Amino acid sequence: MDLKEQLVGLKSEIDSELDKQLRYDNDFPPRIREALRYSVLNGGKRLRPILAITAGEMYGVEKSKLIPVAVALEYIQSFTLVHDDLPCMDDALLRRGKPALHREFNEALATLAGDAYLNMAYGVIAREGVKRFSAESVLRVIDELSDALGVDGVLGGQVLDLDPSRNASDLEGITRLHQMKTASFFCASLRMGAILAKAPDNELEKLTSYAMEFGLAFQITDDILDETSTVEELGKDVGHDAEIKRANYVSAYTLKGARTQAQQAVDRAKDALIGLPKTDFLKKLADYLIERRK
Amino acid sequence: MDLKEQLVGLKSEIDSELDKQLRYDNDFPPRIREALRYSVLNGGKRLRPILAITAGEMYGVEKSKLIPVAVALEYIQSFTLVHDDLPCMDDALLRRGKPALHREFNEALATLAGDAYLNMAYGVIAREGVKRFSAESVLRVIDELSDALGVDGVLGGQVLDLDPSRNASDLEGITRLHQMKTASFFCASLRMGAILAKAPDNELEKLTSYAMEFGLAFQITDDILDETSTVEELGKDVGHDAEIKRANYVSAYTLKGARTQAQQAVDRAKDALIGLPKTDFLKKLADYLIERRK
Repeated sequence: MDLKEQLVGLKSEIDSELDKQLRYDNDFPPRIREALRYSVLNGGKRLRPILAITAGEMYGVEKSKLIPVAVALEYIQSFTLVHDDLPCMDDALLRRGKPALHREFNEALATLAGDAYLNMAYGVIAREGVKRFSAESVLRVIDELSDALGVDGVLGGQVLDLDPSRNASDLEGITRLHQMKTASFFCASLRMGAILAKAPDNELEKLTSYAMEFGLAFQITDDILDETSTVEELGKDVGHDAEIKRANYVSAYTLKGARTQAQQAVDRAKDALIGLPKTDFLKKLADYLIERRK
Repeated sequence: MDLKEQLVGLKSEIDSELDKQLRYDNDFPPRIREALRYSVLNGGKRLRPILAITAGEMYGVEKSKLIPVAVALEYIQSFTLVHDDLPCMDDALLRRGKPALHREFNEALATLAGDAYLNMAYGVIAREGVKRFSAESVLRVIDELSDALGVDGVLGGQVLDLDPSRNASDLEGITRLHQMKTASFFCASLRMGAILAKAPDNELEKLTSYAMEFGLAFQITDDILDETSTVEELGKDVGHDAEIKRANYVSAYTLKGARTQAQQAVDRAKDALIGLPKTDFLKKLADYLIERRK
């Protein structure tokens, strides 16, 4: 089975767990449950749960055991997208080919839905995790995830991203931004699966290096697509960084330079896996990253 | 020692733990750490951690063991205040006598600071909890807290509160709103301490009844103060509910009726404690609730 078929299969299993967890009988309080389905059941590659599941499988934990916990990563991903899209942040019109949540519903509901995603993610990990894994390992995952999302990670990265004093050609600054805003969450996702599966600490280190490079390559590719792709292809606003003169990999390195940077990060990601078990899928996934069209 | 002295002492210990956890050397990313200190180290009665600590002490756990975990409840409280104050929600000017966070900083930073509070709360509970309590009990606390804050609790209550179709004289609806938005969080706070201290399930039930009534009395008193107090006394915007004709206990029951309702809720709260150990503090706290001036 080639990588694309594998990804489609995994996505479909993840989507059906999300659908199950978010089903409801009663639209009360009005529209919030609908809003929660709207954003998360709306396409998406599901890369973060896929990373968690893959790491778990490398250390002998079955996919079906990880899926109910790993979908929490998609709630978190939706939390970041919905809040980043708000008028006071990126003021985005489109997300995954549909109106951003605050445009389809309203700003208050979008703020609250984002909050609800983040909040329910921790509940799901605690509740579904304790049924399937050691309580200590579940707590470690929660602790690490909270770190990865906090002011030294994703949320701090968004603060930096919005900082008007940021210098468009500060390469070190842009790399740090991507590490905080994007790579740290990929890292926590891959580590989630490995920690629950009790991977040894030295192997966790290698997975961490892989995920940091993977995340960097992912974000560089995002910057490239923001420059080279269309709204129709991506399903979200494009050219926004250039429009507001916001620094990104393309502004810092040119398009060609950014492509080289992405390829180098992918090479480093694959090198980091040397000595680990069953790494085929992770290697192919890293290659796929920089070829993707959306 | 009378209740007020006890409350002052507890508040000071809680504040010093918050100060310790939020200390920083480096203002990076710019202003977010400052924003996090601004809202949470800014007065506040600290009722939720006090409830957690009190329940823990009832079942033999020392205060000092609970404080590092219980401060997470103040992060959550700040999360709800900061997001509720946003322009798209209550558009508040003042909070605890100072400009609301989005006015002192900006809206994006206020949204992200609220997110960071919620996120770090779960991290603190996991990290500090596992050092002091059984991992299973810490996970149960996280699970319950997530439920209490979610669409069936605090966040859902805020959705209802903003719902323009809400009927100002629908008594059942207003009580349900208060239970979701306010009481469920008091309830989760008291249960946090009791669960970590391994209180028996039937006693947990009684504490739950107490906290639900306590929360209701608290919110009715808030509604009364919103009507009868001044900006200077409360340190936050007043009269907002009346101004936008939003339903609350005073609009539904009149001032006198609301006072009776609050007293009845306090009486039911105290009755719920019959048969539990060391309930003096909780009883006094319930009485204090409806006498408070802010």
